[in-house]
Amino acid sequence: MSVPLDDRGFALGDGLFETILWSAGRLVLFDPHFARLSRGCEALGLPAPELEAVRYAALAEVEAAGLVDGRAAVRVTWTAGSGGRGLDRPEPLSPRLLVTAARAPAPVGPATLAVAATRRNQGSPASRLKTLAYLDNVLARREARASGADEALMLNGRGEIACAAAANLFWFEEARLVTPALGCGVLDGIVRGETLKAAAELGLVVEEICAGPRALERARGLCLSNSLVGLRPVAAVDGVAVRPHPELDRLVEKVAAAVL
Amino acid sequence: MSVPLDDRGFALGDGLFETILWSAGRLVLFDPHFARLSRGCEALGLPAPELEAVRYAALAEVEAAGLVDGRAAVRVTWTAGSGGRGLDRPEPLSPRLLVTAARAPAPVGPATLAVAATRRNQGSPASRLKTLAYLDNVLARREARASGADEALMLNGRGEIACAAAANLFWFEEARLVTPALGCGVLDGIVRGETLKAAAELGLVVEEICAGPRALERARGLCLSNSLVGLRPVAAVDGVAVRPHPELDRLVEKVAAAVL
Repeated sequence: MSVPLDDRGFALGDGLFETILWSAGRLVLFDPHFARLSRGCEALGLPAPELEAVRYAALAEVEAAGLVDGRAAVRVTWTAGSGGRGLDRPEPLSPRLLVTAARAPAPVGPATLAVAATRRNQGSPASRLKTLAYLDNVLARREARASGADEALMLNGRGEIACAAAANLFWFEEARLVTPALGCGVLDGIVRGETLKAAAELGLVVEEICAGPRALERARGLCLSNSLVGLRPVAAVDGVAVRPHPELDRLVEKVAAAVL
Repeated sequence: MSVPLDDRGFALGDGLFETILWSAGRLVLFDPHFARLSRGCEALGLPAPELEAVRYAALAEVEAAGLVDGRAAVRVTWTAGSGGRGLDRPEPLSPRLLVTAARAPAPVGPATLAVAATRRNQGSPASRLKTLAYLDNVLARREARASGADEALMLNGRGEIACAAAANLFWFEEARLVTPALGCGVLDGIVRGETLKAAAELGLVVEEICAGPRALERARGLCLSNSLVGLRPVAAVDGVAVRPHPELDRLVEKVAAAVL
């Protein structure tokens, strides 16, 4: 499968994607993924796809990949379609739907993080969306790998903690569970939302904050959230071990039950 | 022509492009364009293409498009190639070269600008490169069009004047010609470089600055620079007329001689 060279998703990053887990014979949290894709379309000024078209294409790709009985990562890409002159979009737009499915990565142990020099752009709506313009995330991840870590910890342009290259961040400050606010230039993660919900159900006090990296000094139970792994604990940041928190295991289990 | 769905340029914006003018039977300023592409590869950690391969593909596309005797916009795209898992690049990388040619836009009159809410990310090296992750530029342009203007004036995350969505900015402050410094999150434009050179040859004092939007209040002779139009005067910003400057015409002509 391929995409024409004049597709704006290819040429300019003008489009969105979702990565949806296929597990136990279903598309996990399909409705919130589709809702986020639709909100993203609104933010970017793109028509939204039709729910049934996306679901059908996703199922067809899982089947074609021979993964119906396994765990698959389904990537749904929705581009602004072909055409336009330079940056200007054509009128009318003919968006393009492209779906692929691949074996989902196996579960992994705790992650190590490295703080990346590449910053999040909190001054663009794209920083809160899964867009095809994901190069800053690639560069941050590359920095992390170069320093021997698994994943990047990204700050935004104001120097506040934002997220990982492919995950949201959570940690405990004493009894409170905290996560960077969306205004920090943070993807509105599906598992982020499920984690906030699960934490509230566990009776935890949860708070969305804006904080500089010094907040990590008093953080406990730091973890990553993403659709393919649920909540993944972090072992160390820039080589400094993360202290555990007594509530983390319970939260990881509750989130896993909802999202894996 | 098409690109595979697993190309990282399509999936993640992991790649670079150049837009080169074909005019009077030659690729205008090919060497600086190629040099910038190579510097971009170094910044992103990609192997650079071979100069002769790029030149050959460009000439072939101009010919295939029937534009040898006309003016063409040649787009050279260089992606990180296929593969990898998620954000992580494969080892080794097999980058992909894709070239298209289209009729160059006809010369146009002065531009009107609108200050965009979408900001440049001065905290990423990508803000100084022509990358496939160009969505912020698309969004800024879209804002400008929605307000009836031709082009966006983008500020960076610190609120400093950076550039237009598809051009660099120059203006006069009394006798000095100024342009935002690259550190403001500004593309290292080929015509930007030629304009700095031309201005020096005309005996103008030139300065690269970081300044907030209030600098526009005392600006004269504001103009855009880009590879397809050379220097294009700006008539108004957010509906406020730009005052002329006596040196601008001479500069526009000298730059045109070098870049068009």
